Amino acid sequence: MGRSPSTPETRVAILGFGTVGSAVAHVLQAQQFPGVRLTHIYNRDIRRKRESERAAGLGADIVWTEHVDEVLQADVDIIVETIGGLDPIEEWLQMALRSGKHVVTANKQLIAYRGAGLLQLARDNNRALVYNAAVAGGVPVIPATLHGLQGDRITRLSGILNGTCNFILSHMEHGADYADVLQQAQTAGYAEADPTADVDGFDARAKLCILARAAMQVGLDPDEVPAQSIRSVSAVDFHYARELGCTVRQIARAELQGDTLLARVGPMLVPRSSPIAWSHGTENMVVTTGDFGGDVVFSGHGAGGNPTAVAIVSDLLAVAHGSSSVALPVRDCAVTGEFLAPYYLRFIVRDKPGIVSAISGALSGMGANIDSILQRPGYPKEALPFVVTTEPCLTSVVASAVEQIARMPTMLEPPLCLQMLTDDARD
Amino acid sequence: MGRSPSTPETRVAILGFGTVGSAVAHVLQAQQFPGVRLTHIYNRDIRRKRESERAAGLGADIVWTEHVDEVLQADVDIIVETIGGLDPIEEWLQMALRSGKHVVTANKQLIAYRGAGLLQLARDNNRALVYNAAVAGGVPVIPATLHGLQGDRITRLSGILNGTCNFILSHMEHGADYADVLQQAQTAGYAEADPTADVDGFDARAKLCILARAAMQVGLDPDEVPAQSIRSVSAVDFHYARELGCTVRQIARAELQGDTLLARVGPMLVPRSSPIAWSHGTENMVVTTGDFGGDVVFSGHGAGGNPTAVAIVSDLLAVAHGSSSVALPVRDCAVTGEFLAPYYLRFIVRDKPGIVSAISGALSGMGANIDSILQRPGYPKEALPFVVTTEPCLTSVVASAVEQIARMPTMLEPPLCLQMLTDDARD
Repeated sequence: MGRSPSTPETRVAILGFGTVGSAVAHVLQAQQFPGVRLTHIYNRDIRRKRESERAAGLGADIVWTEHVDEVLQADVDIIVETIGGLDPIEEWLQMALRSGKHVVTANKQLIAYRGAGLLQLARDNNRALVYNAAVAGGVPVIPATLHGLQGDRITRLSGILNGTCNFILSHMEHGADYADVLQQAQTAGYAEADPTADVDGFDARAKLCILARAAMQVGLDPDEVPAQSIRSVSAVDFHYARELGCTVRQIARAELQGDTLLARVGPMLVPRSSPIAWSHGTENMVVTTGDFGGDVVFSGHGAGGNPTAVAIVSDLLAVAHGSSSVALPVRDCAVTGEFLAPYYLRFIVRDKPGIVSAISGALSGMGANIDSILQRPGYPKEALPFVVTTEPCLTSVVASAVEQIARMPTMLEPPLCLQMLTDDARD
Repeated sequence: MGRSPSTPETRVAILGFGTVGSAVAHVLQAQQFPGVRLTHIYNRDIRRKRESERAAGLGADIVWTEHVDEVLQADVDIIVETIGGLDPIEEWLQMALRSGKHVVTANKQLIAYRGAGLLQLARDNNRALVYNAAVAGGVPVIPATLHGLQGDRITRLSGILNGTCNFILSHMEHGADYADVLQQAQTAGYAEADPTADVDGFDARAKLCILARAAMQVGLDPDEVPAQSIRSVSAVDFHYARELGCTVRQIARAELQGDTLLARVGPMLVPRSSPIAWSHGTENMVVTTGDFGGDVVFSGHGAGGNPTAVAIVSDLLAVAHGSSSVALPVRDCAVTGEFLAPYYLRFIVRDKPGIVSAISGALSGMGANIDSILQRPGYPKEALPFVVTTEPCLTSVVASAVEQIARMPTMLEPPLCLQMLTDDARD
């Protein structure tokens, strides 16, 4: 690379100078890690970035550029990618790896969809590709899993991996309305103008795939994982959840049963006694369950510039110190969304008499048994919400019954069907 | 080592075949990690161990020996030490490192008191000395800190690092008596016949020193850290703690203020809203606070054969794969137990009139201000417990006032003085 081996300096370039990229520059500037030097910053319209407040205090010798080739061809050791998205980023990082650069990225979609190919390319070029910042931001669940739980056999993961959904649902728990709190999250910068990736579960799903790869050594394609939106959850569901000793959270979960991986993302009922229910605001939380070590809980800030920058800079230091490599075999396994779990079904109906027996008939006809029927007083008869919970049954069984029930003429809205997380992992 | 470099097999010896050592053997046997082979087991009176139930199912070609030299001189790559204590273990591990073996250990006292010398010896011999199992058993807080939080500047650690104390105090919270629950813990194998190391804080203190080294890069001698026993905490303290929105836990805490490290271990009042209060039974929990990433919470099983074995085997795999090395600078810093914190003072007095003014006089004379005075009804006048909490003041200030108050003739017992953990780290 044109430098003598007696210079142990690691030269770092950042692609993208938004919230995360500028936070990485800021942390590097504040911490002054020996031997680590920020040399290049790439962004579109670089002049605006360079003159922004975020650029204040950064080293005067940094090269600011809007030509990515200038970075990819430069004498740098590590490329930090904070732009996101699949194209053209994949190609840029391929070029970086081929030209002998290590890569650190927070790009969850890229790693979830195209990680396998990039990792192979990194190995072929004897370079590191590290992405601990892609899951749970400042919560070091991937490094902890890779370095501290490799001796275990992790069979279950349950996590709150999307801070936006957690912000929305934990505020709804205290009475806020979905639309209001979404707008509040957008104003605060926690949610995008188009909230689809967050509320419909695609963001959490990509993270679950990356986490399952690290913790369970399974290759998992995001498109194989069923994702349910949180848009249909409403105030009444929190009332009924409370009556059931639960709350509602967007959960990403995976469970290994022999050679089959069960995986799902969506709003679920969570027992209030579970650590998962403790998380509030934009927090992220992951519970891993191992055959030998049992449950381990991780929580903290899952997003935001500084927490994500901590994960990126930690990766960068690991690469600089040569301690980032972990050999990860991948096991073959079938993927399914067929959990055996209890379900929460909420109906809004016009009229009551006969409804309960029709619903229970539809459920029992499919082989699903009712565990409880709840109807709180005080709702109008002409749009009456009521709730049925089932004993554990297969996802497809309850889905077929719900499809049948949805066609009943008294149903005013499509029924809401939420998986219930049980507390069995907790003593 | 007499083997050709084309054989990438890693040969492992275990020193000690008790609860942890036999669990390590069991996990290795169950998991069959490629390239890792258990070759030697050392214990005193080895015949009894070899014929025990725990030895069932282990490989027939394992060498069982009661002569440690046979292991230290053998062709093994990694020595796993699970015996504990300082001597003769330190000397054995020195011999192992000098003869080119890597060392994995769960020995917290050894690492806390003599880790610096052993780590230097490991570096001199280009070997790894890894000890993630020494703190919080199956909770991978050290690997997470080393690999995932190195980019942050961690300024505060609060932890529940002793499962025995947590078992005792979380049962006392629900009404159990100290002596009864200690005996229950002893029967269940959670507490030693001599519980001193646990209840008086020496175990947690050693772990705090190791953790502070990893998370804050401070060299900390356990003997510099004040440790308070939990023996003086009684049922009445849980009643008053509840009235203050708190519970009582044995906390190990360290806080970096400039070049000074504040550190202390002992029973403290913990807000019930804090994650620290969520831990129950023998669980361990650590909260780290970083300048950039904020709070991160880790919890899980802190002790027991299998969780500790997970940590050891994970270390072993990291060493086998060459990914265990983390360069850790050590910063110079002064150590003090002088926290600026609110305090909980519980008195048992014979008579009330005049007492409150005498106590408040003693406190204000030293410069400590009273925040609240609590006296629950229903206690006998002739042995009346009552509680004073202070506004934040220095540890030495409250200690001097308490010393003065203890000499008052109406005091029937030495006053109990507990630091109160505040919730400021949370939001």
